[in-house]
Amino acid sequence: MIFSLFYEKRGRIVRVRKRKGAEEYIAENPDWVVLTPDEWRGRWHERFGNDHPIHIEVGSGKGRFITEMAKAHPEINYIGIDIQLSVISYALDKVLEANVPNVQLLRVDGSDLTNYFAENEVDLLYLNFSDPWHKKRHEKRRLTYKSFLATFETILVPHGEIHFKTDNQGLFEYSLMSFSQYGMKLQQVWLDLHTSNYEGNIMTEYEEKFSSKGQRIYRVEARF
Amino acid sequence: MIFSLFYEKRGRIVRVRKRKGAEEYIAENPDWVVLTPDEWRGRWHERFGNDHPIHIEVGSGKGRFITEMAKAHPEINYIGIDIQLSVISYALDKVLEANVPNVQLLRVDGSDLTNYFAENEVDLLYLNFSDPWHKKRHEKRRLTYKSFLATFETILVPHGEIHFKTDNQGLFEYSLMSFSQYGMKLQQVWLDLHTSNYEGNIMTEYEEKFSSKGQRIYRVEARF
Repeated sequence: MIFSLFYEKRGRIVRVRKRKGAEEYIAENPDWVVLTPDEWRGRWHERFGNDHPIHIEVGSGKGRFITEMAKAHPEINYIGIDIQLSVISYALDKVLEANVPNVQLLRVDGSDLTNYFAENEVDLLYLNFSDPWHKKRHEKRRLTYKSFLATFETILVPHGEIHFKTDNQGLFEYSLMSFSQYGMKLQQVWLDLHTSNYEGNIMTEYEEKFSSKGQRIYRVEARF
Repeated sequence: MIFSLFYEKRGRIVRVRKRKGAEEYIAENPDWVVLTPDEWRGRWHERFGNDHPIHIEVGSGKGRFITEMAKAHPEINYIGIDIQLSVISYALDKVLEANVPNVQLLRVDGSDLTNYFAENEVDLLYLNFSDPWHKKRHEKRRLTYKSFLATFETILVPHGEIHFKTDNQGLFEYSLMSFSQYGMKLQQVWLDLHTSNYEGNIMTEYEEKFSSKGQRIYRVEARF
C-alpha cells in the first residue's frame, strides 16, 4: 500500500495523506459505504428503500457537498463516488455525523460506472471541482471528456443532466466545448456563481477555500 | 430627423451624437457604403469582383474591426453592417483611409438580413460587443436571440460559424445558452481572451477602452 496519493490540481501537486485505519473504518460501516456495489446495479432503489430520484456526485472528495445536499433534500437519494480510500473515509465522517438515510458512498472509478448502475438508473449527476488535467495529453482523463460523457449518458435517464462547477477556467472552457460537441444542450451557465442570484449553492471544501481567495466559480447545467 | 440616438450598453446610457453632414457624406461615397443593398442580394461576389469568401460583421460600429480585418486578410471580402447613420459615417472614415478593395459598409437592420443576402451567401458572421439588452423583457432584441440566429443561419453557408466577443458577462452567459439551445455547436470558448494564447485578435474601439480598465473579454466560435 502506498503512503499517499498525489494528484495534480490547478497546476499544483496536492498531497492526499493516507489516513491510518481508513480501510478498517470503511469496512466497519457497510451501511454507508457500499462494499459490493456491483451487486446493487439496477437495484439502488431497493437499497434506499424508496423510489426517490437518485443523484450522484462523481468525485465527491471529503463529502461536504453530498452530505449537505442529502440533509437539504430528504426527497432525493444521493450517492457520493470517489476512488480515493482516504477521501472516502473523510466523507464517511460527515455522513455518520449527518445520520440521514438518503446518502451512500461508493469507492469506485468514474470510468467504470456502468458496472454499478443500470441504464437510466440515475436522475442527475454532479461534477464538482474535478481534476483539470490541464495538459493536452491528459485530456482523456478529464471527467468531461467524451468517453466519460458516454458513460454518464448510459446510466442517466433520457435527457438527464450534468451539473458541473469548477474554479478552473481552462477546464470550464474545455467542458463547455466538450458538452456541446457531444450534442448536449447547455441549459444555464454561470460565469461567476458567487456573485449571481443562484440560490441554494452548497460549497465544497475546495470551493470555500479558493473562492475566499477571490477565485471565480463557474457553473453549468448541461442536458443530454 | 432626431438629434441623437440613445442606447443602453453595459447598463449605462451611451449617447451616439449625430454627425453633421453624415447623410450627405455617405451619399457621396456609394462605392463604399452600399445605398441599395437589396439590389445586390445574391450578387455580392459580383460587386466585389471575385469569388473570395464573404465575412460580415453585424453591428460594426465605428468600423475599426472590419477595416483592420480587411487589411490583414486581402483574400476575404468584408461587409460591415450597422443601423446607425452617424456610426456608419465614422466607419467610412476608416474605410476611405484604408483604401482597400475588400470592404463594404451597409446601413441596414440586423433583423432584415435575408433581404440583402441570399441563402448560403455569407461564409462567416462576426458579432462584437453587441448591445446586451440586459432586461429580460428585451431578450428578443439581443443579436444572439433565436430569431436572429434563424436569420443568420439562412444567409450563412451550411455549418457556417458565428464568432462572438463581448465584455458583458450576462450577455455571454445568455449567448452560450442560446447558441446551444438553438442546436449550434460551440467550437471553442475563451473566458479571458486577452490573457489567452489566441493570436490575431483585432480590438474594436470599445474593446480597447474597456479591457484597459481591467474588464475581461469573452469570446466564442459557434457553428450551425
